[in-house]
Amino acid sequence: MPNDYDIVIVGAGILGLSSAYHLKKNNQGKSILVIDRFGDVAQGNTARSNAMFRNTFTSRDNLILSDTSIDFYLDTQKSGVDLGLKKSGYLWIMSEKQLSSSERYIQKMLDNKIELRTYDRQELKRLLPTLKTMFGESDESRLLKIPDIAGAAFGVKCGRLDPEKLSRFYSDGFRALGGKIAFNSNVRSLIAGVKEPLGIEGEPFVWQEGRVTGVSVEGELQGEIRADTVVIAAGVWNNELLDPIGIDGHVKAKKRQLFTVSAKQNPSLQALIHTTGFNNIDVLPFVILPKSGCYVKALEENNEFWLGCEDEFNRPYLNIPEKTLDNCKAEPSYYEQSLYPILRSYFPEFENAKPAQMWAGYYSMNTVDSMPFVFEENGMIIAGGGSGSGIMKGDAMGRIVDAVYREGDHAVTTLYGGRSYEADRMSFKNRSVEREEWVI
Amino acid sequence: MPNDYDIVIVGAGILGLSSAYHLKKNNQGKSILVIDRFGDVAQGNTARSNAMFRNTFTSRDNLILSDTSIDFYLDTQKSGVDLGLKKSGYLWIMSEKQLSSSERYIQKMLDNKIELRTYDRQELKRLLPTLKTMFGESDESRLLKIPDIAGAAFGVKCGRLDPEKLSRFYSDGFRALGGKIAFNSNVRSLIAGVKEPLGIEGEPFVWQEGRVTGVSVEGELQGEIRADTVVIAAGVWNNELLDPIGIDGHVKAKKRQLFTVSAKQNPSLQALIHTTGFNNIDVLPFVILPKSGCYVKALEENNEFWLGCEDEFNRPYLNIPEKTLDNCKAEPSYYEQSLYPILRSYFPEFENAKPAQMWAGYYSMNTVDSMPFVFEENGMIIAGGGSGSGIMKGDAMGRIVDAVYREGDHAVTTLYGGRSYEADRMSFKNRSVEREEWVI
Repeated sequence: MPNDYDIVIVGAGILGLSSAYHLKKNNQGKSILVIDRFGDVAQGNTARSNAMFRNTFTSRDNLILSDTSIDFYLDTQKSGVDLGLKKSGYLWIMSEKQLSSSERYIQKMLDNKIELRTYDRQELKRLLPTLKTMFGESDESRLLKIPDIAGAAFGVKCGRLDPEKLSRFYSDGFRALGGKIAFNSNVRSLIAGVKEPLGIEGEPFVWQEGRVTGVSVEGELQGEIRADTVVIAAGVWNNELLDPIGIDGHVKAKKRQLFTVSAKQNPSLQALIHTTGFNNIDVLPFVILPKSGCYVKALEENNEFWLGCEDEFNRPYLNIPEKTLDNCKAEPSYYEQSLYPILRSYFPEFENAKPAQMWAGYYSMNTVDSMPFVFEENGMIIAGGGSGSGIMKGDAMGRIVDAVYREGDHAVTTLYGGRSYEADRMSFKNRSVEREEWVI
Repeated sequence: MPNDYDIVIVGAGILGLSSAYHLKKNNQGKSILVIDRFGDVAQGNTARSNAMFRNTFTSRDNLILSDTSIDFYLDTQKSGVDLGLKKSGYLWIMSEKQLSSSERYIQKMLDNKIELRTYDRQELKRLLPTLKTMFGESDESRLLKIPDIAGAAFGVKCGRLDPEKLSRFYSDGFRALGGKIAFNSNVRSLIAGVKEPLGIEGEPFVWQEGRVTGVSVEGELQGEIRADTVVIAAGVWNNELLDPIGIDGHVKAKKRQLFTVSAKQNPSLQALIHTTGFNNIDVLPFVILPKSGCYVKALEENNEFWLGCEDEFNRPYLNIPEKTLDNCKAEPSYYEQSLYPILRSYFPEFENAKPAQMWAGYYSMNTVDSMPFVFEENGMIIAGGGSGSGIMKGDAMGRIVDAVYREGDHAVTTLYGGRSYEADRMSFKNRSVEREEWVI
């Protein structure tokens, strides 16, 4: 019986779509179907992302995956496709302790030709006059353990993009080449079979070479879809498909929340948005504060900020989140009790600021090293583990999936711009990714 | 408020008890409580284990962890404590392909002074005259893809022990030193707090240093038990406690099944049990067949065999199994359709053999590298990932937990016999365990 498709890709988020695009482009004779349970592209965690990008990593792997992807995004937008991309920069504001522990990593990044500027406290104060840098003996800052600011580092090839526009770019390209997408179709399970079935009840037996032979789908698309290769790019839902067939999807979901604050009625917040001196669009860069990963993103086109911070301890891991994200909601108390006290300590203009909107999504965490992975197993290519930086590495990841499809685990991928990358570094069998050292 | 205990250990399996024993021995002034939901020691997966031990590993870490633990078990039994230990040896029977791919690993093990003998087909036939080594063109062996046998490797410092006796040795020693064990007590959750709480609803906030301050228990022991350090040694139930507080327990459970076959009515099976020439107890060693990890364990004292094989693909992973093992059962069809066809192909004396008893338990799989781990995090020491070889490394693991308690992640542990081991190799932050290469 011939297969229905050469390749079925589960997931129409950024990773599935980038994979679909590069697979179709380099294997035009192959029939490829993308399946997603939502009604359009990027309706899962891709759309809920903060969608920032940066190339400021010490890890060789992080650098090449992000830097080449960013180049592709920049050139794509330059060629006339609007990806909502703004090269606004990243500003890490640091305590004395962070600054001194970062010194060698900053030097390493500079040696690797990453565009990075540093500021001391005075230079920073000149650029951001309202930023509070010294806290003295105030009770609240002592209680919050708010550190004084000693300086900052600024990443130039960093900024933000629109994840839905980027996803649409890939899906349009994929469909233009003849690729198909089935929306509103839930892949309920993977079909565990054998390459040459005997037709005996209970296969695969232990003495057979088992493999995934397709997917079982319900929704607008129904029934069993047979494929030669199944690509698993379902993000935090990877385990839902893989646990039942005894393969670890190597991700756990961790909720992350975003809160918007409008600057419309507040001239001092408006002034903060239009900070000059960092980038050529005269907008406040993405600011990371020296406490709890608290960050401030200015969106000048909406006259608003997006705010968040990173809670690790006591923020649950989910092995398999619910199928929908309906119950994945932001918590007002998280803004009030965790984020806001830090935010207004450093930027007094946020005093009394209330969130206008809030939402939450899941990071797809690779809990071992927070680095992404691509590996082949039993008729599948499994990709994921973005760990909060999946979109900025999305183009490279799609190219690696394609290379593994064509050449197997030992593929050497040519990433955008011509740099080569050994896919096997990202496998688990022979994992050798360089861990990120600059984590502040 | 003073803590109830200095250390609370969750889990009275081999890992929890070995940890309890070594912690109490080296920290006699500290109060230590072990909590377990079952009614006695080793009532979870420890008791359901095959409980074999071997030191035949290429990985430096596997070797030192198992070899020093085995030495401790051997000397303990020599000193008069019955651990049910039999040094019956391990016999890997191999196909041509396995033999040739094993060559360099066998040499490496020999270089590392591991006692290992090799046999060619003829020598093997002389020792095991009933073993079928050549299959010709038979339909069934072609169907099953049963490979011909080319030779074997025999591990000398290998054998079996009684996991309940070993567990009792540790628990007796622990209690003799004043340690306490609470049975029939279920640790429902870890208490996520802060070292110096402010007493505000909702702590820990993101700007606080969160840590586990105790456990919440129901059963014979009730309520909140506060401890300075909580040791998580709950095996496949690690995630049940750790996922909710956002720390990955780094294990998934995979069911493994054991089937017994009696030799009582069968002289040829009896003869197989009393195979001579391998060890000084004249018993068939633990035999691993060259297909699907199918193995044969002879128990001369019961006049029976224990049989099993290893299914990877399509055997589900569980992130958190049920609290009891009541529904973790062996499947008769697994014996009949998967194990038996392989078994009787090689050992015709098993023709028509039916299982007398069967049971199942869970391997606590570290899905990244199948190696165990110990790491410190937020007031806890988390240990696990035995991946099917936890008992044989149990003594070393307990010593490492103790060293990490006393000296932190960077502890250098002195294992039994005096060899030293850097605990940090087994952490995740700085993981540097050597992966096992000899996997056949």
